[in-house]
Amino acid sequence: MQREHLAAFIFPSTDPHQGEYVPDHWKGREFISGFNGSAGTAVVTMNSAALWTDSRYFIAAEEQLKGTEFQLMKLKVEGTPTIAQWLRLQSSIFNLQSTEVGIDGWCSSANAVKELKAELRKEGGFTLRTIFDPLKQIWQGRPPIPKNPVEIYPLEYAGESCHEKIGRIRQALRERHADGMLMAALDDIAWTLNLRGTDVHCNPVFVSYLLVSTTAVTLYVDRAKLTPAVEAYLVAEGVGVDDYANVTRGLKDYFEYNILVDPDEVNYTLYDVVRSKELWGKEPGRIVEEESPVKRMKTVKNPTEIAGFRSAMLRDGIAMVKFLKWLDETSCETELSVDRHLTALRAEQPLYRDLSFDTIAGYGAHAAIVHYEATPETDIPLEPHGLLLLDSGAQYLDGTTDITRTIALGPLTDEEKLVYTLVLKGHIQIELAKFPSGVSGTQLDILAREAMWREGLNYLHGTGHGVGSYLNVHEGPHQIRMEWKPAPFVSGMTVTDEPGIYLAGRCGVRIENTLLVVPYKETEFGQFLQFEPLTLCPIDKRPVIRERLTQEEIDWLNGYHQTVFDRLSPHLDADEVEWLRQACAPL
Amino acid sequence: MQREHLAAFIFPSTDPHQGEYVPDHWKGREFISGFNGSAGTAVVTMNSAALWTDSRYFIAAEEQLKGTEFQLMKLKVEGTPTIAQWLRLQSSIFNLQSTEVGIDGWCSSANAVKELKAELRKEGGFTLRTIFDPLKQIWQGRPPIPKNPVEIYPLEYAGESCHEKIGRIRQALRERHADGMLMAALDDIAWTLNLRGTDVHCNPVFVSYLLVSTTAVTLYVDRAKLTPAVEAYLVAEGVGVDDYANVTRGLKDYFEYNILVDPDEVNYTLYDVVRSKELWGKEPGRIVEEESPVKRMKTVKNPTEIAGFRSAMLRDGIAMVKFLKWLDETSCETELSVDRHLTALRAEQPLYRDLSFDTIAGYGAHAAIVHYEATPETDIPLEPHGLLLLDSGAQYLDGTTDITRTIALGPLTDEEKLVYTLVLKGHIQIELAKFPSGVSGTQLDILAREAMWREGLNYLHGTGHGVGSYLNVHEGPHQIRMEWKPAPFVSGMTVTDEPGIYLAGRCGVRIENTLLVVPYKETEFGQFLQFEPLTLCPIDKRPVIRERLTQEEIDWLNGYHQTVFDRLSPHLDADEVEWLRQACAPL
Repeated sequence: MQREHLAAFIFPSTDPHQGEYVPDHWKGREFISGFNGSAGTAVVTMNSAALWTDSRYFIAAEEQLKGTEFQLMKLKVEGTPTIAQWLRLQSSIFNLQSTEVGIDGWCSSANAVKELKAELRKEGGFTLRTIFDPLKQIWQGRPPIPKNPVEIYPLEYAGESCHEKIGRIRQALRERHADGMLMAALDDIAWTLNLRGTDVHCNPVFVSYLLVSTTAVTLYVDRAKLTPAVEAYLVAEGVGVDDYANVTRGLKDYFEYNILVDPDEVNYTLYDVVRSKELWGKEPGRIVEEESPVKRMKTVKNPTEIAGFRSAMLRDGIAMVKFLKWLDETSCETELSVDRHLTALRAEQPLYRDLSFDTIAGYGAHAAIVHYEATPETDIPLEPHGLLLLDSGAQYLDGTTDITRTIALGPLTDEEKLVYTLVLKGHIQIELAKFPSGVSGTQLDILAREAMWREGLNYLHGTGHGVGSYLNVHEGPHQIRMEWKPAPFVSGMTVTDEPGIYLAGRCGVRIENTLLVVPYKETEFGQFLQFEPLTLCPIDKRPVIRERLTQEEIDWLNGYHQTVFDRLSPHLDADEVEWLRQACAPL
Repeated sequence: MQREHLAAFIFPSTDPHQGEYVPDHWKGREFISGFNGSAGTAVVTMNSAALWTDSRYFIAAEEQLKGTEFQLMKLKVEGTPTIAQWLRLQSSIFNLQSTEVGIDGWCSSANAVKELKAELRKEGGFTLRTIFDPLKQIWQGRPPIPKNPVEIYPLEYAGESCHEKIGRIRQALRERHADGMLMAALDDIAWTLNLRGTDVHCNPVFVSYLLVSTTAVTLYVDRAKLTPAVEAYLVAEGVGVDDYANVTRGLKDYFEYNILVDPDEVNYTLYDVVRSKELWGKEPGRIVEEESPVKRMKTVKNPTEIAGFRSAMLRDGIAMVKFLKWLDETSCETELSVDRHLTALRAEQPLYRDLSFDTIAGYGAHAAIVHYEATPETDIPLEPHGLLLLDSGAQYLDGTTDITRTIALGPLTDEEKLVYTLVLKGHIQIELAKFPSGVSGTQLDILAREAMWREGLNYLHGTGHGVGSYLNVHEGPHQIRMEWKPAPFVSGMTVTDEPGIYLAGRCGVRIENTLLVVPYKETEFGQFLQFEPLTLCPIDKRPVIRERLTQEEIDWLNGYHQTVFDRLSPHLDADEVEWLRQACAPL
């Protein structure tokens, strides 16, 4: 920093592909701060350091930053300064000589850098300078970029061939007056090409870029990852291959074309290359700066994918029921041991490939830590009282699952019962929702919250997110959340329904099914949609305060449990069926 | 158009002050097309003409445009072209020679012109040229700009002096790094100065601009409107006066300052003057392009204004009860005659000044025309069956009212009862809502719609809007509606709650109270808010299908009716009290 005359350096939690899980090679923020949550931004000056993260990680970050120079900055909490405000304060305290702030242009999206630039300029008079790979020199033993093999995702699961998808993408590009597009999102690339990989934790994707034009498709990837079968497949699908590092050269070839670049997806440096007249010395084509059309295409599942989801959910439900029965009968377990047992039961299921995210198994007060992940240091024994929150999911070859159950391990306090019942009411209200086509998740969100708001309770995370087809467990752009997300629901989309309540130091509850958007009815007011639960697993009835549910809510729960029983019982042994019969008995 | 070589001319429904009600002088769109709805845009080419309006006016516009050259374009209906798309089509059909389109830069907001420019360029390759007052030459007998006298709004109603408000505005300007601001919204000017007028239909405002800087306040107004008392008051409050036409010169004096301009409020020509380096030949100050801080200030009512609202609502409720009793007992009335009677009853009340908007009295199928306004030509007799929709309100010196009741005139069809009950459920769900501080109306909106969505029914207008304090009946920026409005509710705001259902050719129902935002409770999750109904008038119980209401909804209705009875009965005669007792009896 001294050599570069920088006042500060910013380390975001992102990588060149803006993925949620970052390969170790790009975990610069974790390397510098020690905080390993999935979202957070570290800022370092010569004299001070701070880390911004959201409410999911407040407690975890506090733990992990203890004893470091990093001050924790809680996002969305009143009084928390923005990065620019904090930098201005540091500048006045430590009399910083420079007003230049550094950032790695490869590891932040174009929009993130543009917003940060504007904010730094406005709030503190700082300018932002992009520096290539700043940790190169100081990061000893840095993990390499992953080199795992790529595999073909068979048509029997994908349901649509690569060249058909490319055809639809080209159609979308024409409608947007673009001659081509640069894809950087690894799940979009995997979806488009019907390829999968294991480069990223829990996400079956591989590190690459994809350039699609009206005449050519080029995959920028480390060739060492491609087996002869994959090479042949790509040739057959008309996809050319070039080295990962050659993406900038590839962009140069399309310099005079109008290229669609999603500025939330593509990193700032590549975005800069696409438009830099100075760099290439000629007049650039127009950048069509829009959301990538692939995002929405991918979220609308085709009939094959939907059938795959149903099979995967059936097997996941079988594993969950075996687990829940075992949990009822076992003793002397801990958060980590139940996590291990559940994972083992899932791994027994056909087509199992991996977890879809790290299991969250939080007992008692640990459940109030929204993204708690038990470690040998934090692990605690389960006692025969209170609530265990278990948020987990798996990658099966035919679908991705995401489910949360909160389970009573014995007697509960009145507060635990009330909180559980309010969360369940919120969950059911989303399950019951009917809405006209065109409605977005911001509009539906309150259905999950109104019952708890009447009690002065709330949760600070979103209510739902899309789920990929043997792809990332978090998929957009549609979401159910308080913040505005202008992505309307479309029949065939998946979305989770996962309200919660977290009382710090006391308990935490979340109840989550993955839902499918399906048609409801068509009237003179147009097409209406509704949800159908894909997840098949009983919801614990023991904590429910029955009088707090409406008859409609009770009817939904009983109907759901009937479906769960009917679907799962043919695949279970007699003892398991008996357990499930009790678990699914009408409330 | 020929002389100016224009392909087309666009006539919006707005005026230099972006008000909802436009003084006759600026009703160019109505003059050119004959359509008199409050929202609509006419576009004229040498060969064709079209008019865009929203669902409120589809039926009315169809009537009024019959036999003219204007084609009706239904906004938000699938297949309706945008203005740019339609112009491109006209251009190809009629082989238009020019690609220039004209618009009056004084009569459209800066943002409206900027958006139109971008759309015309993108969709059809058209350019937009601003032409000053294009109707000047062809509009014979054009009404002049209104010259009605301005009056002082006493502190006993306003609750905060002009100089205190100016102080708060200057504070807001400092926070936004602005040295001054230009106000063009007539209600913002009236609110700031504690002055009222009668220049605009139903809105107690006067035509003017206001320039506020750190050192001076200048009102640009026709001096003939100011009585000596008002002149003296303005001097005492430190407000200078200049002629209405001198606002551009006034802006020139502040050319080097950073001026806040709300581009949704200020017209394009003035916005252009503020920033035009070419025009003034020197380097301009920065335009702080933000929502006017006055908008939000004005919506949060002070204790005096809230007390005024309560008194005005009491008197409005008395008039409404007298009216409803009379309606139950009368016969041989028509839409227009009941409107006249209601207005006469309101006019008897102390402090009555005017209507706050033109009464909507729609019987039977007329009620399905959302903004139906009965005329001698459309007026129909009320029959002893079906539903009468009555949306009305008044301007009292201490507050503005807005209320809709739908009244059973006799036997109802099952459909009418169902629709009424679903609207009532929606209305009550908003009344019952509790929500954390920071929530906006887009999030609440679904509470009014979910019950009808389950039946495949909907309404295409917003659910609620702010209401002024003896000011405009429509006040923003907060609203309850499906479209995103990022203006959070604040304690002290007024907002209407007016869901509806309209079945074309059959019936229409809307039920509306004006509500006040008040604190609910404070918990570890922050401050929660709720609504308190200001409107005091029974809601017709005769159409209600009781089994369709939840116990909570029935309890709310009974509780509301108890309040209405307790507040109004001391002010009514014995017969009226008896009628009200029946109307307010528990369901």
